[in-house]
Amino acid sequence: MAQIEGRNAVLEALRADKTIEKIFLLDGCQDGPVRTIFREAKKREVRVDFVKKERLNQLSETGKHQGVIAIAAEERYYTVDDILAIAKEKGEAPFLILLDGIEDPHNLGAIIRTANLCGAHGVIIPKRRAVGLTSVVAKASAGAIHYTPVAKVTNMTATIQELKKQGIWFVCAAMDGPVMYEQNLTGPIGLVIGNEGEGVSRLVREHCDLTAAIPMQGDIDSLNASVAAGVLCYEIVRQRRM
Amino acid sequence: MAQIEGRNAVLEALRADKTIEKIFLLDGCQDGPVRTIFREAKKREVRVDFVKKERLNQLSETGKHQGVIAIAAEERYYTVDDILAIAKEKGEAPFLILLDGIEDPHNLGAIIRTANLCGAHGVIIPKRRAVGLTSVVAKASAGAIHYTPVAKVTNMTATIQELKKQGIWFVCAAMDGPVMYEQNLTGPIGLVIGNEGEGVSRLVREHCDLTAAIPMQGDIDSLNASVAAGVLCYEIVRQRRM
Repeated sequence: MAQIEGRNAVLEALRADKTIEKIFLLDGCQDGPVRTIFREAKKREVRVDFVKKERLNQLSETGKHQGVIAIAAEERYYTVDDILAIAKEKGEAPFLILLDGIEDPHNLGAIIRTANLCGAHGVIIPKRRAVGLTSVVAKASAGAIHYTPVAKVTNMTATIQELKKQGIWFVCAAMDGPVMYEQNLTGPIGLVIGNEGEGVSRLVREHCDLTAAIPMQGDIDSLNASVAAGVLCYEIVRQRRM
Repeated sequence: MAQIEGRNAVLEALRADKTIEKIFLLDGCQDGPVRTIFREAKKREVRVDFVKKERLNQLSETGKHQGVIAIAAEERYYTVDDILAIAKEKGEAPFLILLDGIEDPHNLGAIIRTANLCGAHGVIIPKRRAVGLTSVVAKASAGAIHYTPVAKVTNMTATIQELKKQGIWFVCAAMDGPVMYEQNLTGPIGLVIGNEGEGVSRLVREHCDLTAAIPMQGDIDSLNASVAAGVLCYEIVRQRRM
């Protein structure tokens, strides 16, 4: 746990969408900046406790809290090797979910939640152009973030190439091509889900071994990214159970 | 399209989460109420256009726009009979999705999106204790709301009883009991999805013909409601294709 003190520091942390567990605000304080912090906290569903000045003085590590102290969680990432070790320990073929640029924290949270329940061993996200483990993600994951490891990698294609050497097959969520029921999704697998707007990037797709499409009829283009991830994950579950 | 004019009326419409397509605000106006409208609009991802006073005067139907005019969509609901007629017209066995108290507009939107793509003929929601067709729902549906009919019913169990007489079977999403792969989900079907926190209510569940569970391992309780709906819908799709 990290403690953040002072108005600007806390407001910045909120706006950067850091994972904040709780904010202590000076009771009765109606200053503009304090009200802004309150509003921003509510917007992000961060818990706010109103406390007396004595309590803030007692909590303060810097002595300069300005009526505001936030308790922030450390963002904790795992490595890809950590995830593989978990699969090995369970005696299961690795089942990884790779997210090629998910931007919506609700989607990332929902996917980590699905990963936890469908038996995936971990989630791999890119360092750039994607949402990380923020407080909104933690909340949307319904606690799964505390159980299912998330690894952050610099280069998704390099990670795929490395994991292929270890015998993992990569299946790319696609809009067309063979439907998921026709593909063999058993065995050590990495499921690649693309960005909300653009799908899986060309380079990442080219490094995958196979593609799997969810059959679609209807009038619009695509499922919500976390729904698509859920449907594909459970096709893997179904095939593994057979 | 309905036009809403004046500060209070527009702010109320926003706060009631009516489906607002666009808001015109007086360019350069920095009044408190106008800034509040701007902030509330942004929070709901409603498009805001800043326009000159002449344009507002021209658009105004009341002559009393106070610098604010909103363009609201009509909430358009269908009847259950409309939905059945669509299935009949397509020569398909009815496939309905009944939502027993979904509260999160992102979930409702994502489920309507899934309904559109998985070939469901419509979505049935209750009048009370549930989110309706708001602007957030419309956005989350990615346009599906314009294609997939949504019916609002006063009494979900009465609707189920009525539809059973017409030969539709009802399957209830459940946390335990037979897994979905073991149930016969072909034929005329109504899939019942419960509330985010509490699942399907006892009374509604008792009126269903069978239950279907998504197999779960892992540490947390349940999938996101729209992900669970997607996984169950696609099990129905799979069985219907076989």
